[in-house]
Amino acid sequence: MRKIIVDNYEQLSNLAASTVFSEVMKDKQTNLSITGGSSPKGLFKVLIEKFNQNPDLIEMTKFFHFDETEYNNKKFTQDTLIPALYEPANVPEEQIFWFTYDNYQNYPNIIEENGGLDLMIIGLGADGHFCGNMPIATKFEERSYKVPIKEEYPWYKTMETLMDKEEIPEYFVTLGYQELLKVKHLVMIVNGENKADALKRMLADEISTEFPATILRTHPNFTLIVEKSAVS
Amino acid sequence: MRKIIVDNYEQLSNLAASTVFSEVMKDKQTNLSITGGSSPKGLFKVLIEKFNQNPDLIEMTKFFHFDETEYNNKKFTQDTLIPALYEPANVPEEQIFWFTYDNYQNYPNIIEENGGLDLMIIGLGADGHFCGNMPIATKFEERSYKVPIKEEYPWYKTMETLMDKEEIPEYFVTLGYQELLKVKHLVMIVNGENKADALKRMLADEISTEFPATILRTHPNFTLIVEKSAVS
Amino acid sequence: MRKIIVDNYEQLSNLAASTVFSEVMKDKQTNLSITGGSSPKGLFKVLIEKFNQNPDLIEMTKFFHFDETEYNNKKFTQDTLIPALYEPANVPEEQIFWFTYDNYQNYPNIIEENGGLDLMIIGLGADGHFCGNMPIATKFEERSYKVPIKEEYPWYKTMETLMDKEEIPEYFVTLGYQELLKVKHLVMIVNGENKADALKRMLADEISTEFPATILRTHPNFTLIVEKSAVS
Amino acid sequence: MRKIIVDNYEQLSNLAASTVFSEVMKDKQTNLSITGGSSPKGLFKVLIEKFNQNPDLIEMTKFFHFDETEYNNKKFTQDTLIPALYEPANVPEEQIFWFTYDNYQNYPNIIEENGGLDLMIIGLGADGHFCGNMPIATKFEERSYKVPIKEEYPWYKTMETLMDKEEIPEYFVTLGYQELLKVKHLVMIVNGENKADALKRMLADEISTEFPATILRTHPNFTLIVEKSAVS
Repeated sequence: MRKIIVDNYEQLSNLAASTVFSEVMKDKQTNLSITGGSSPKGLFKVLIEKFNQNPDLIEMTKFFHFDETEYNNKKFTQDTLIPALYEPANVPEEQIFWFTYDNYQNYPNIIEENGGLDLMIIGLGADGHFCGNMPIATKFEERSYKVPIKEEYPWYKTMETLMDKEEIPEYFVTLGYQELLKVKHLVMIVNGENKADALKRMLADEISTEFPATILRTHPNFTLIVEKSAVS
Repeated sequence: MRKIIVDNYEQLSNLAASTVFSEVMKDKQTNLSITGGSSPKGLFKVLIEKFNQNPDLIEMTKFFHFDETEYNNKKFTQDTLIPALYEPANVPEEQIFWFTYDNYQNYPNIIEENGGLDLMIIGLGADGHFCGNMPIATKFEERSYKVPIKEEYPWYKTMETLMDKEEIPEYFVTLGYQELLKVKHLVMIVNGENKADALKRMLADEISTEFPATILRTHPNFTLIVEKSAVS
Repeated sequence: MRKIIVDNYEQLSNLAASTVFSEVMKDKQTNLSITGGSSPKGLFKVLIEKFNQNPDLIEMTKFFHFDETEYNNKKFTQDTLIPALYEPANVPEEQIFWFTYDNYQNYPNIIEENGGLDLMIIGLGADGHFCGNMPIATKFEERSYKVPIKEEYPWYKTMETLMDKEEIPEYFVTLGYQELLKVKHLVMIVNGENKADALKRMLADEISTEFPATILRTHPNFTLIVEKSAVS
Repeated sequence: MRKIIVDNYEQLSNLAASTVFSEVMKDKQTNLSITGGSSPKGLFKVLIEKFNQNPDLIEMTKFFHFDETEYNNKKFTQDTLIPALYEPANVPEEQIFWFTYDNYQNYPNIIEENGGLDLMIIGLGADGHFCGNMPIATKFEERSYKVPIKEEYPWYKTMETLMDKEEIPEYFVTLGYQELLKVKHLVMIVNGENKADALKRMLADEISTEFPATILRTHPNFTLIVEKSAVS
């Protein structure tokens, strides 16, 4: 694991963006996977500005995803990322490979057939989740799997903040750590004081499904970009 | 070849810097080679600022070179790059592998033993040279070689602008294209109206030692970052 | 370039086969391209035997091609490779990506979208051709192109040995050297006294379209496996 | 994980050897690490024969190690591998990087500075150990560490079969799984009925330090070559 501490959110966003720019400028197809959520907002701003200036930057790029929650005719990841990144950045639809309830089991093969993921940028959940790998419910050995949503899980309440209680589906789907181990460069961005405790636990707790992000310490090419305020 | 046209020199410098940042942040040793000269001044500014903010960024980075002119107890590349980049960026000396008259023949082995070059950033000479591969005198098949400096060469006059006539040595040394073909990502930065003609020739002329940069079109992973003003 | 001289054709075939086995055993999709012709007959024997013993070896392998001659409802490369390798080795059709008159222009993109070629094994023509890159008619800078078949070319007579004169089409299609430069490992097998002169010229002649294989010396990861009898 | 089942030990040895041959023939430095012990005897036979025929095959190869037990002026791994492989294969000493009690902490850096390991071939202990990662004593998160040798450990008895009781040192040293995750291709060879139970546990038991090899299932590029007799 490589840890880079930066002074502020703008620096974090720019460094994260540089990993994207470096890949998409190569004279080869690049396969990326970038998280939604709040941490990448600054990153998205930089990417959108640059992709608008230079649309040819993403000519040879394919975009992949790692989780999805389908409920009440909505798709959480798609509905988040389209307005936040893909529409404003003018990413052609045919370059986006959505992860869905229908294709999640085959999705690792889809990634493989396209040559594997070059770069994935993820965030850190305050409860220790990464992608859709949730406390207790995580299965470290899976490449792609269903995560049941049960009231007994500590993170059930978070689901209620994201959608109406009656909309909450029985499960969502996610790539598992086994698939992330195959990503050539895994980058995590962590910002804000409210992530300080989670960061500390990720770095120091014993590896366990109680705090899934602890497993990321074992990734062979993992870069952690951290805003100073998130360091306790 | 991949060509990215940007609006101005700042954008060019930032995109070039992003290829460096992306490599040096990986959790592995990174081997870089960055040109001196005038084109990378903006790039150096960005690198120096960031490396000063985050010295740990370059902890796992080794810096290699591709040419040298030794004359009158001076070394042109070393004398240029130390004040322009290495000193202000606080790069530890032991991470810098100088290319010299003594080691140039063995230098490809030194690169190989360190795991190969991940990224090289070069400029384009107005006369079509790249690294020390000069018009007419270029040998495309060499990995590393002596370039004789003869008055009959069209670029002899340039030597006179760089040093006193009596200081001009009999030859300088350079990596050849054969070695550049082994670089995983080769990036060229081209800025300014005075490079417009050279850029045009590099992209359109027949491949020949008359205009050495024409050979770069064959590199398997070559990114050309061009300022709009250099596009005729 | 790396040159390995072996005692006999069996050793050559086994070493070439080992490059294939090593790739197809990895836990990732592997993209291969293997020549037809007479040189790989021993290689095919080894591959067929092993793939018959262990059909799961090629589960994650895709096979690509680099040239084709279509004439009189026949396809030279397909008609050669199906009985020589694919049928006896039980390679599923959907894992074979034929190169054709219809798709040759787009074929480099097909390769790219599948993640690039990991390994290509080629032979050396007695006249210096490799793939369909023929003396004089070769265009080194192309990724994929039409080669016109003209009576004035020195190799026209070879065409007459392969098909009836009235069947000879106006052109065939081939990948060019620009595309071969992107292959991660390029292997050439050369056997038999009748190749001794061609081998010598490939290694010593000036790089030129007169003897196209001379350009292969510049490939960044090129292994030449040579039977002793082909060394003059 | 990729599992290849072969009919007999000769096939296993040949397939394992092919991964070595493929790497050492590339036109680049190759960094290998090959286990001692009884499983690789057939592999060593193939390697020695071929390296004797073609000494230039290993010209660009460096050999690394992953464990060592120093006792009574002896070094277990060195003393095993020199007569079993390095002497008969005529590997020059300067291409061998021994792992020792003195350098084990820095050894991951040595590997890194040489460009990382391309290929490692290991065996499976009947008690579930791999390299020196022993039941109960294993620390999955280490790159390189001391393993204390205590009478309370179930594998203490094995030590007594390897050396006199009074020679048994307080600890040995090994690379940990964290370092193996960085190996580009990890190959394990498993042969013989007496490994059938261990193989079954490696593939089916929960991941735990009780049976360390269970963790190998998570490696991103892991090939398991198994003799049929070891499959229960």
